[in-house]
Amino acid sequence: MTVQTIGEGLAADEGALYARVQQFYAEQVALLDDLRAEEFAATFTEDGVFAPSPSVPAAHGRAAIAAALLAAHERRFRSEEVRRRHWYNMLRVSVRPDGALHTRYYTLVAVTRPWNPVPDIGPSSVVEDLLVLRDGALLTRERRVVPDHLSF
Amino acid sequence: MTVQTIGEGLAADEGALYARVQQFYAEQVALLDDLRAEEFAATFTEDGVFAPSPSVPAAHGRAAIAAALLAAHERRFRSEEVRRRHWYNMLRVSVRPDGALHTRYYTLVAVTRPWNPVPDIGPSSVVEDLLVLRDGALLTRERRVVPDHLSF
Amino acid sequence: MTVQTIGEGLAADEGALYARVQQFYAEQVALLDDLRAEEFAATFTEDGVFAPSPSVPAAHGRAAIAAALLAAHERRFRSEEVRRRHWYNMLRVSVRPDGALHTRYYTLVAVTRPWNPVPDIGPSSVVEDLLVLRDGALLTRERRVVPDHLSF
Repeated sequence: MTVQTIGEGLAADEGALYARVQQFYAEQVALLDDLRAEEFAATFTEDGVFAPSPSVPAAHGRAAIAAALLAAHERRFRSEEVRRRHWYNMLRVSVRPDGALHTRYYTLVAVTRPWNPVPDIGPSSVVEDLLVLRDGALLTRERRVVPDHLSF
Repeated sequence: MTVQTIGEGLAADEGALYARVQQFYAEQVALLDDLRAEEFAATFTEDGVFAPSPSVPAAHGRAAIAAALLAAHERRFRSEEVRRRHWYNMLRVSVRPDGALHTRYYTLVAVTRPWNPVPDIGPSSVVEDLLVLRDGALLTRERRVVPDHLSF
Repeated sequence: MTVQTIGEGLAADEGALYARVQQFYAEQVALLDDLRAEEFAATFTEDGVFAPSPSVPAAHGRAAIAAALLAAHERRFRSEEVRRRHWYNMLRVSVRPDGALHTRYYTLVAVTRPWNPVPDIGPSSVVEDLLVLRDGALLTRERRVVPDHLSF
C-alpha cells in the first residue's frame, strides 16, 4: 500500500480538495447510517482511532471501531427499527505540514421511526478528523467527536 | 436544443462539477420553496419524471410536475401561510457511462408559520436524481424521493 | 490595504470560488458561535453592515457589529450556558459586475444546554451577503438576515 500525502496536486486545487472531502463523507456516512459496520470501519486506516465522545474510551483499529458502532446502536435503539441520518455542516478543511488533512465540522442526527414523519433531531456535535490519502482514496486516521451537551 | 453529456470538460474538474450541482440545487430549491410551480417544473427535462414518494404515482412531464406540486401543497397546508425551506445534505455526485449525473442526498424540510420562531422539521428523506446538461445548463431528468418513515 | 475584485482568477474557477466561500463561512461561523464578538466583527469590512432582522436597526462598522452580537446574546440567553451552532444550506454564489460576491443561503440555529442531548432548533432564516476580497481574504461587506417567522 502506497502512503501518499495530500500535497501532490490535490492540495493545490482548492475546489477539488473540498469536493473530494465532501464526497468522501457522503459515502462514509451512508455506511454509518446503514449500520454496515465493517464497511464503515474499512474507511478508517488499519490503525484508525474513533473517539465518539469524551465520556467513553476511543476504539483503536477497524475491528474495535466496527464493534463499538454496533454496541452503541444496540444500547440506544435495541431491536427498534429506525432510519438514522447523520448531517454534516460548516466543514473546514486544512492541509497540515505532514500532508494529512485536518477537518472540523458540525453534526446532527435525524432519527425516523416507521410511519412517523417527524424525526428526532440531536445531539449536536463538533467533530475533528485527520484524513490521509492511500492508493488515491481518502481514509480516516482519527475521529474525535464532542457532543455539545457534554462539552460544558 | 443541443443535448450534451457531462463528460466534456466539466466531468474532469471534480471541484467545478460538485459546485455546479450544488448551485443548481440551490436555485432549483428556491423555486420549489416559493411554490413557483411552473418555473420549478422547467428545471426538469420536458419528459422529466418526479416521484415524490413511493406511495403516490410519479408525475411525468412539466405540466404534471407543476400540478402535482401545487396539489400536494394544498393538500398539506390548504390556505395556511407558511415558509417552507428544503435542506439538502451529504450529496454524492457520480458521472454515469452515458454522461448523465447520478446524485443521492438527504433532505429535511423546515416549515415556519408567522410569528413562531420554532419551525416544524421533517420529514427526513433520501433523494436520487438523474441530471443532464442541456445548452450548458443542468436539468433534472428524474427525481425519486423516499421519505424515511415510509421506507421500512 | 489592497482592494481586489473577485474577478481575477478566482471567479474563473467555479469550484475554487464555491469552496472558498464555504470555508470562509465555516471559519466565520466558529467565531460567531463561540461569541468571539470582536474577531467575528473583524471578518466584516471596516464599514461593514450587519442587519440581523428587519425588525431591528442594522449595525454599521465593526465596533457596532460586535456590540450588537453581545447584546442580542445577552437579551436571549442572559447568563445561561449554551452551545449555539449556526447551520447554513442551499448556498448560491454569484459574481456581480463590480467584482463583489453576492450570496444567498438558508440558516438554522441549534442551541444545546448542558446534559440535554436534544437541541432547540430555530429560527429558520434567509441570509443575503455581499463579500469582497481584500489582501487575498474574503470579508463581509453587508449581511441582511430575514427570519422566516418575520417574513410574512
